[in-house]
Amino acid sequence: MTLRFGVIGTGAIGKTHIDRITNRLSGGEIVAVTDINQNSAKSAVEEYGIQAKVYPDDKSLIADENVDAVIIASWGPAHAESVLAAIEAGKYVFCEKPLATTAEKSLEIVEAEMKFGKPLVQVGFMRRYDQGYKQMKNAIVNNEIGEPLMIHAVHRNQSTSENYTTDMAVVDTLIHEIDVLHWLINDDYKSIQAIFPKRTTKALDHLQDPQLFIIETQRGIVITVEVFTNCQFGYDIQCEVIGEIGTIKLPEVPTPVVRKNAAISQPILQDWKDRFIVAYDLEIQHFIDSIRKKGYPEGPTSWDGYIAAVTSDAGVRAQKTGQKELIELKARPEFYKSKNSPIQNLMS
Amino acid sequence: MTLRFGVIGTGAIGKTHIDRITNRLSGGEIVAVTDINQNSAKSAVEEYGIQAKVYPDDKSLIADENVDAVIIASWGPAHAESVLAAIEAGKYVFCEKPLATTAEKSLEIVEAEMKFGKPLVQVGFMRRYDQGYKQMKNAIVNNEIGEPLMIHAVHRNQSTSENYTTDMAVVDTLIHEIDVLHWLINDDYKSIQAIFPKRTTKALDHLQDPQLFIIETQRGIVITVEVFTNCQFGYDIQCEVIGEIGTIKLPEVPTPVVRKNAAISQPILQDWKDRFIVAYDLEIQHFIDSIRKKGYPEGPTSWDGYIAAVTSDAGVRAQKTGQKELIELKARPEFYKSKNSPIQNLMS
Amino acid sequence: MTLRFGVIGTGAIGKTHIDRITNRLSGGEIVAVTDINQNSAKSAVEEYGIQAKVYPDDKSLIADENVDAVIIASWGPAHAESVLAAIEAGKYVFCEKPLATTAEKSLEIVEAEMKFGKPLVQVGFMRRYDQGYKQMKNAIVNNEIGEPLMIHAVHRNQSTSENYTTDMAVVDTLIHEIDVLHWLINDDYKSIQAIFPKRTTKALDHLQDPQLFIIETQRGIVITVEVFTNCQFGYDIQCEVIGEIGTIKLPEVPTPVVRKNAAISQPILQDWKDRFIVAYDLEIQHFIDSIRKKGYPEGPTSWDGYIAAVTSDAGVRAQKTGQKELIELKARPEFYKSKNSPIQNLMS
Amino acid sequence: MTLRFGVIGTGAIGKTHIDRITNRLSGGEIVAVTDINQNSAKSAVEEYGIQAKVYPDDKSLIADENVDAVIIASWGPAHAESVLAAIEAGKYVFCEKPLATTAEKSLEIVEAEMKFGKPLVQVGFMRRYDQGYKQMKNAIVNNEIGEPLMIHAVHRNQSTSENYTTDMAVVDTLIHEIDVLHWLINDDYKSIQAIFPKRTTKALDHLQDPQLFIIETQRGIVITVEVFTNCQFGYDIQCEVIGEIGTIKLPEVPTPVVRKNAAISQPILQDWKDRFIVAYDLEIQHFIDSIRKKGYPEGPTSWDGYIAAVTSDAGVRAQKTGQKELIELKARPEFYKSKNSPIQNLMS
Ligand SMILES: [Mg+2]
Ligand SMILES: [Mg+2]
Ligand SMILES: [Mg+2]
Ligand SMILES: [Mg+2]
Repeated sequence: MTLRFGVIGTGAIGKTHIDRITNRLSGGEIVAVTDINQNSAKSAVEEYGIQAKVYPDDKSLIADENVDAVIIASWGPAHAESVLAAIEAGKYVFCEKPLATTAEKSLEIVEAEMKFGKPLVQVGFMRRYDQGYKQMKNAIVNNEIGEPLMIHAVHRNQSTSENYTTDMAVVDTLIHEIDVLHWLINDDYKSIQAIFPKRTTKALDHLQDPQLFIIETQRGIVITVEVFTNCQFGYDIQCEVIGEIGTIKLPEVPTPVVRKNAAISQPILQDWKDRFIVAYDLEIQHFIDSIRKKGYPEGPTSWDGYIAAVTSDAGVRAQKTGQKELIELKARPEFYKSKNSPIQNLMS
Repeated sequence: MTLRFGVIGTGAIGKTHIDRITNRLSGGEIVAVTDINQNSAKSAVEEYGIQAKVYPDDKSLIADENVDAVIIASWGPAHAESVLAAIEAGKYVFCEKPLATTAEKSLEIVEAEMKFGKPLVQVGFMRRYDQGYKQMKNAIVNNEIGEPLMIHAVHRNQSTSENYTTDMAVVDTLIHEIDVLHWLINDDYKSIQAIFPKRTTKALDHLQDPQLFIIETQRGIVITVEVFTNCQFGYDIQCEVIGEIGTIKLPEVPTPVVRKNAAISQPILQDWKDRFIVAYDLEIQHFIDSIRKKGYPEGPTSWDGYIAAVTSDAGVRAQKTGQKELIELKARPEFYKSKNSPIQNLMS
Repeated sequence: MTLRFGVIGTGAIGKTHIDRITNRLSGGEIVAVTDINQNSAKSAVEEYGIQAKVYPDDKSLIADENVDAVIIASWGPAHAESVLAAIEAGKYVFCEKPLATTAEKSLEIVEAEMKFGKPLVQVGFMRRYDQGYKQMKNAIVNNEIGEPLMIHAVHRNQSTSENYTTDMAVVDTLIHEIDVLHWLINDDYKSIQAIFPKRTTKALDHLQDPQLFIIETQRGIVITVEVFTNCQFGYDIQCEVIGEIGTIKLPEVPTPVVRKNAAISQPILQDWKDRFIVAYDLEIQHFIDSIRKKGYPEGPTSWDGYIAAVTSDAGVRAQKTGQKELIELKARPEFYKSKNSPIQNLMS
Repeated sequence: MTLRFGVIGTGAIGKTHIDRITNRLSGGEIVAVTDINQNSAKSAVEEYGIQAKVYPDDKSLIADENVDAVIIASWGPAHAESVLAAIEAGKYVFCEKPLATTAEKSLEIVEAEMKFGKPLVQVGFMRRYDQGYKQMKNAIVNNEIGEPLMIHAVHRNQSTSENYTTDMAVVDTLIHEIDVLHWLINDDYKSIQAIFPKRTTKALDHLQDPQLFIIETQRGIVITVEVFTNCQFGYDIQCEVIGEIGTIKLPEVPTPVVRKNAAISQPILQDWKDRFIVAYDLEIQHFIDSIRKKGYPEGPTSWDGYIAAVTSDAGVRAQKTGQKELIELKARPEFYKSKNSPIQNLMS
């Protein structure tokens, strides 16, 4: 059984998914596409030489009985309605982040999914599929560094467009750490504080850059995350977990070491799209495989999307108040506990 | 068009190819299998749940008109006859190393392929598909370190079985460096010398381990390769090219860095199968893609298999004589020049 | 002219200074010693085979006209009175940290020194003499990473004795970062916040360990310092400065890299005394040399001791209040500006 | 007792020794100097403000009864006669490499010293005092990597002057590895082979650069040394010992790591004088200390100088013949065994 996909949103990210499902992965095919720009949808069909119907909107695409699963790669504010429509139709959903732009809407999705009665949704938090994070998770689970006490993380981008605003440091950038870190230490967040250092002169005036976030968890673990989106030098993701008996650090991206011009050096990636390129393939392959084998996706859940939304909201508040803001989650429903944990699968 | 594969040899390596084509890659399917042990072939079909005919031998499998391409993963000495039969039938061939166990037989394959009139054969030299080697190649082509003058390479295995003999250090182990290094520097070999250091007491008495090889190329580049197959600590592949203005070194395998017990440490792989696991996928995907797009495989050619065979022969002689042995290749036929270079594709 | 030293305090640290001046450095000799434990003073004389008078107390030692300079290595609370007595007598002073245990007493020393009319005092902040910090300072001064915006620092000790209390994380441990970081970025501090993560179970119950400090400077640079004094694995000092166009990080202590037992590893120091061992020699040699050449010590000044005391006080308050505490320094007197900067000497 | 030095040769290296004994080390002073250029000797006295007699030649300096020890830093071919004269006079000798330019002359010195009846001579092989090599030696002695089987070493200089000739790759450059490697593994050499790779175009036409040397020891350890003296990029010394159960590698020179301009980089030293700068201090301090404490120098001996001379001779022959040349040492006299080993002292 090949999983038949409809793709909602044929911009840059949507096209990378069409490409990987068509040309690199196993077990999936693209049978339908749509985009608010119909020409974009049509040209995607041509570009990848796929036999896919072009639909006028998400609703009609979702209604196509040949569509088993939808990939939502549209504009963020449009995600939630597409997800809800797909759940309504009983279709599987791979939704790029954010699942929804508010905590309320995320919760609505969670409730719709529980009402439907089985997991349908996977959120595009690809870092959990990165080999480095998986190895760290594995080491922590195996108690190699003892109980975690602190995390130091760094998220640096070379530069941002003029549309990038101060709150996007949370909702677009920090969001990846928000998801991956609670997964990494298997804990829930309690509060978040934002600190604004001296601004770089390399960013536009409207933007506070860099920013420092201090997040505390229910168990008392303290996380610092540097977000610096105009660091000039490259895309640089770092993460170190400090435990009772040792620390563990995400490996650097492997690149050849050159000795030349009085220096030992190795390249840093400049394009963020290259950093987790293997993880992007793995997240979709895992989505396909788990649906084919178990009947539901095993990756990051709607509940993970809800956690990210609640934490993001608190983070944006913290930027404004300068105070420690509480992160108040509802109790985790049994529905999101009983499911086979994606963590365990990633560990194997 | 899906490329339909017949697999000759369903041992460990054959099964990894069945797995990747069935479960991870795009554009291929397994339609036929055979093995000298028929039960092995049958159980492979069951294990992977594939719809594939089980043939009694390579000839009958090759004759199946549903088979577009064969993967040869049988015992090394059987490779050449299967390759020749496949060429005779006009089928594409992915042949694990060695292409043949003698230089003469390799040449016979080269001639058969030229007579057929288009490239059909790709040899399983997967290192060319490793990201680290590709980046090194790219840097050398871009003249980042100037003209290469020397290479220092290291090939260490944790341990060997009792069947592993002194000559296998060349034909089974060094062979990977033999292939990847001439590709890396785009040169041909001229001579090889073998030096036997003090033996490790951790290997069986019949085995000379470690060994050191000195290879010179036509352009005068001097290559040293340490082969140490019972190094105890892990699988460790190193390669540094020294050029006129700089050096470049293969990256270490990325693993998390742990601080614990008075040390900073990171794991070394112990199983060689993990080291080039991405490269194995890429070599087969490239085989499929290039055949589908261009009508012939673009990876390592029969001529590369011939180079490896001639160099191996000289290496084994060098082990015996203690002298510098010449590596005498025939002139490279136009047929293996005019073809689009796989190198260029790997660089893109 | 040999600089003739009197040593006040012949405990562990005092003896290392006797050793280095007697056996390794140039231009100094020990002519007098004292300790509240007279036997300790006498046995130090014997142990190092030096010809030094043993005095009953600091005052009589200072009064010896053969004494040009005193080294104060007594119990911290005794430092200030010895320093003041030495200034009164016009003797040079090398005082181990802290200069004084309160900001007020530090200020009294500063004023006494200014009244005397020339610099006499060097405080034992040896990190400024560490090659790694000096190289970082040099790079920052040369604008290699652009204007500094943030610092991430780490101060980890293997374990602490039962006498070590929560406030000592500031006054004994963080104090080294307090001194070296304002020197590194040539800025003054503005505020400090203390955050208490989940406690390690490897420390005694009375101790909060680890701790996280957030320090802001007048220019707006935000500094995070992890202080973790029972990290179990070793003595580990890290420092990264993040600038507008790049970052720079303190080098790891160089130790041989071993491949063994499925790991690549290198030792971490376990004894803090080994970490800055070269810097300890250099700080005393610099004290001797600058006095001999220029007539006053060029190293860290009384004013640096005052900065450390004020910042420590605020840090201890911050531990108690959980709030951001202001660091309020008096204006830097001209006296401590006009002097040739030790920084510039360290850079040459 | 201060050790009173006479310095023979006040060129660049001689002056660094005057500087360190006068300004940095403990227990020595310069009381006499000479140079074939008398103005050089006079100006050295002025430059360092020392009270030292200027002698017309080595013989008269050695005869000065105020001179306890001589430092020989003259032109290499003049070393042996000065050493012999000093032994004749019963003076201690610190002789820069080479001890003598021929094996015969080295042996003459060895015999003169034995005739005198106690060790007087230390040869300036400073690498044994480098912290990295000492740590490696220590690890090997402690059997951390098992019995050594191979060594890979690299000696790269940025560039050479036009006076540098092909044989100097042995007598001036490789000589440091010749000394330090037999000390490191506690073995004697058996043969040496020289291999000439493709020449760099960055060196003058008369020079073969790079060169590769293969040295075998009595125990069968095989050593490869790359000598590349116009590598353009910096001064780069590497050494890895491969043992039965692990490998150990000399640490890189510690320098801050910078992230900038799409790269992670750290500087490589360009000036060889900086690489072993601490070791130069330590070798002279050790010379002074051991003479003061034990009555003879404990560092590298005349016998080590003889080993270096015999091995160099064979290396130069190997450059010419292209063959493996034997390294034939006389039996080590009891005189050079019974002495307390400098190795053991370096280990403590
Ligand atoms: Mg994603
Ligand atoms: Mg292969
Ligand atoms: Mg100190
Ligand atoms: Mg020397």
